[in-house]
Amino acid sequence: MSTLFFSEMKYDVAEPKSASADRFILSKGHACPILYAAWEEAGLLSHEQVLSLRKIDSDIEGHPTPRLNFIDVATGSLGQGLGVATGMAYVGKYIDKASYRVFCLLGDGESAEGSVWEAAAFASIYKLDNLVAIVDVNRLGQSQATSLGHDVETYKARFAAFGFNAIIVDGHNVEELLAAYETARNTKGKPTALIAKTLKGKGIEGIENEDNWHGKPVPAETINAIKARFHGSQKGKLVAQKPINDAPAIDLHVGSIKMPAPEYKKGDKVATRAAYGTALAKLGDVNPRVIGLDGDTKNSTFSEKLLKKHPDQFIECFIAEQNLVGVAVGAQCRDRTIPFTSTFAAFFTRATDQIRMAAVSFANLKCVGSHVGVSIGEDGPSQMALEDLAIFRTIPGATVFYPTDAVSAERATELAANTKGVVFIRTGRPALPVLYDNEEPFHIGQAKVVKQSAEDKIVLVGSGVTLYESLKAAEELEKEGW
Amino acid sequence: MSTLFFSEMKYDVAEPKSASADRFILSKGHACPILYAAWEEAGLLSHEQVLSLRKIDSDIEGHPTPRLNFIDVATGSLGQGLGVATGMAYVGKYIDKASYRVFCLLGDGESAEGSVWEAAAFASIYKLDNLVAIVDVNRLGQSQATSLGHDVETYKARFAAFGFNAIIVDGHNVEELLAAYETARNTKGKPTALIAKTLKGKGIEGIENEDNWHGKPVPAETINAIKARFHGSQKGKLVAQKPINDAPAIDLHVGSIKMPAPEYKKGDKVATRAAYGTALAKLGDVNPRVIGLDGDTKNSTFSEKLLKKHPDQFIECFIAEQNLVGVAVGAQCRDRTIPFTSTFAAFFTRATDQIRMAAVSFANLKCVGSHVGVSIGEDGPSQMALEDLAIFRTIPGATVFYPTDAVSAERATELAANTKGVVFIRTGRPALPVLYDNEEPFHIGQAKVVKQSAEDKIVLVGSGVTLYESLKAAEELEKEGW
Ligand SMILES: Cc1ncc(C[n+]2csc(CCOP(=O)(O)OP(=O)(O)O)c2C)c(N)n1
Ligand SMILES: Cc1ncc(C[n+]2csc(CCOP(=O)(O)OP(=O)(O)O)c2C)c(N)n1
Repeated sequence: MSTLFFSEMKYDVAEPKSASADRFILSKGHACPILYAAWEEAGLLSHEQVLSLRKIDSDIEGHPTPRLNFIDVATGSLGQGLGVATGMAYVGKYIDKASYRVFCLLGDGESAEGSVWEAAAFASIYKLDNLVAIVDVNRLGQSQATSLGHDVETYKARFAAFGFNAIIVDGHNVEELLAAYETARNTKGKPTALIAKTLKGKGIEGIENEDNWHGKPVPAETINAIKARFHGSQKGKLVAQKPINDAPAIDLHVGSIKMPAPEYKKGDKVATRAAYGTALAKLGDVNPRVIGLDGDTKNSTFSEKLLKKHPDQFIECFIAEQNLVGVAVGAQCRDRTIPFTSTFAAFFTRATDQIRMAAVSFANLKCVGSHVGVSIGEDGPSQMALEDLAIFRTIPGATVFYPTDAVSAERATELAANTKGVVFIRTGRPALPVLYDNEEPFHIGQAKVVKQSAEDKIVLVGSGVTLYESLKAAEELEKEGW
Repeated sequence: MSTLFFSEMKYDVAEPKSASADRFILSKGHACPILYAAWEEAGLLSHEQVLSLRKIDSDIEGHPTPRLNFIDVATGSLGQGLGVATGMAYVGKYIDKASYRVFCLLGDGESAEGSVWEAAAFASIYKLDNLVAIVDVNRLGQSQATSLGHDVETYKARFAAFGFNAIIVDGHNVEELLAAYETARNTKGKPTALIAKTLKGKGIEGIENEDNWHGKPVPAETINAIKARFHGSQKGKLVAQKPINDAPAIDLHVGSIKMPAPEYKKGDKVATRAAYGTALAKLGDVNPRVIGLDGDTKNSTFSEKLLKKHPDQFIECFIAEQNLVGVAVGAQCRDRTIPFTSTFAAFFTRATDQIRMAAVSFANLKCVGSHVGVSIGEDGPSQMALEDLAIFRTIPGATVFYPTDAVSAERATELAANTKGVVFIRTGRPALPVLYDNEEPFHIGQAKVVKQSAEDKIVLVGSGVTLYESLKAAEELEKEGW
């Protein structure tokens, strides 16, 4: 942390989340006291603030969240930081085309999470040489030793096989760390991973390299003994490098994304997933910072319509839905882009934890899931989204759209771009008739009455395919004299 | 498929899911026509059955499910097969101690899923030399080429770094495949991965190695041209090897798991997570096939109580929740065990897709999630399960328990062991008073009235910590004369 914060990283304490500053993601979020300490040393937090750790009225919580002005995303669910970091690095290299770099610190136990390897693969596919991952190989996890212990060679082989420039370092040796950062800076075409061999609790007698200390406070007398070894604080002596201010200024304020009205004809048969693709491409026309991301289903979700028109605004994430969401969360940080992610709605369940954490991060994330409901039929239950509405509705602050026809699907997409936070749009596979006028206004949280009379006795509620079935049922009921 | 089904694998068509037979998991479930064809060739399915593919009244669906008597688990959500396979292989090697082996076929596109690498790590940690993974490296995915194309060396390096004996083969060369299977059979102490270089649509002009054929039927005229090249069916000529019948007979029928009554004292303070640990250990006492699995949180969920008493009935899955559930789903196949998985309830969201697929697989899976609700406080929102109830309630057929005290937590655990299907138990962190008598009967779907009078005007509903708050509120209300 000291080599990163006071030698390698470029940032300005006056504007910790400036667009041009280097990013740091503490993927092992439970280690946040060290992060708070670093920001105290840098002059952002007061000592009193840091000592408010885990107090009920303090934002200095047991795991970092963006309620703090120097945090981009919440961490604490392990294995999610590297995906977010790759999203930031992708935007830095290909969209902002700026100098800032991205650093991510992971635990060794944490790197058992598959999401770490999805992110690692992504970083090498896109040659993210502005990304540095540091793995704290301290041999220990929460309840026991990790499976690999101090076998740094295996970590190195894994990261190398996943396309990283992997370097083994002694994580307690300042010179080795600085040299490795320099190598990372000079490595072109691939990301770098520092495999840092460390001892948990290094230098603290009775704790160093011992099991059963995870998540436990160090006893007061031990702390006093440590204090005695230090001769005054270094505070103020360590000054960080200033960022290179070359990230473009971007304005994505709510309401700024306006697009031309839909151009459908009532009765034309259009699947809502196709209408989503059309709408996304139109969003791409009006704002270069609206981007699309997909997990090798772009020809099913129709996000490929954006890819075809604006290839620079599309990120193929391959078959890795956790990372699809992770990259999007990274891409929206510091209001750099508005990311629309898409896959089969059923497969967003693969990223439920990432979506949950996106909400904790106040992320401006759009998820568009296709192939919903039993009506997809012959592909069987594995492909059917049946749980998606329940899951997205339980995400704090999420907005959920279930448009029935092409016009409402296009309007939902436009509303999504202009709504902050996690938004889910549920789209269907079958081509069904356009129901609404192109000028029909749509509002969040409002349904439409599509058919009524003064003598109505029965209310039919439907959405998507079930609305068309409801309309058929209404006709039958009318015939029967209801 | 032919080398596997008619040379390497041991099974009996008369009993495709015999406990002693080799297991085969088609992780790339969308390729199921080849699986149905193999079982037709083996004599299990009729040609008419196979031709009922994707018909509305047929179980020969577009992705395999255990509605078919030769399928262990549903596949079709990519990346899940290897985790299940490792669970089966673990049980085969360490619990059944039997000769059967486990084969899993994966796609190359599919192996971008992080869950594949969680499973791979698990297989090598536990030296699952009875497991063979075959990766069909055909260069193509759904919407475009995979990121690695035909770079089989990188696949090999990745599997090798994750502890496999990795062998590159020409996936169309029968001799090479047979030789590789033999090597796998003779490799001790590690799993084997066959990196099979293939051409998608091999031998079919205009389709072989071409993009844009994924999920599309081959045109009728092309099929006729192919048919002309074959000289009659081999049916009946190919006979599979019979299994070695050395897997023990197990009876885990519903209602068979009886355990002694709880031994708590009313008013004693016990966290429901601790009571779960005690109950799990008691289940372990009465039945050696009740197993516990955890993801490096066993000292928080208290599943370590089972580990301490019955180390052979516990599987540490490290920090990889998707695989935690995958291994459990594999472990319960063919009624070999009743697996209880545990982690923080918040982190079960990481495995939502696996849990969804477990339900499609009719899996007998128990999930026990701790640290629920905002009451865990200072650790912050990343650690709080707030979405867990909504998620598990939407899983088809799932049973959800939210016990308040130690007695009800123990009874919930006992009921879970005696309830088929996906069961979720939500446990809490704080130690709170025991409310119920040890003899109090509990039934699924029934709540308890813990306090009432003839003059009641207000109903307070609570569960877990909120029940204790409700009781306090009731006292206040009484004081105020309600
Ligand atoms: C997804 C997820 N699973 C489990 C946990 C619980 N947990 C918190 S820290 C920890 C151990 C982490 O080990 P490691 O990554 O090696 O970190 P370190 O030992 O350096 O603290 C675990 C299992 C979590 N926070 N997130
Ligand atoms: C979790 C998940 N994500 C996405 C899909 C959609 N999908 C089905 S097949 C496929 C491509 C699979 O490619 P590969 O594994 O290489 O299989 P193959 O090309 O051999 O058919 C995709 C993306 C899925 N079924 N499951």
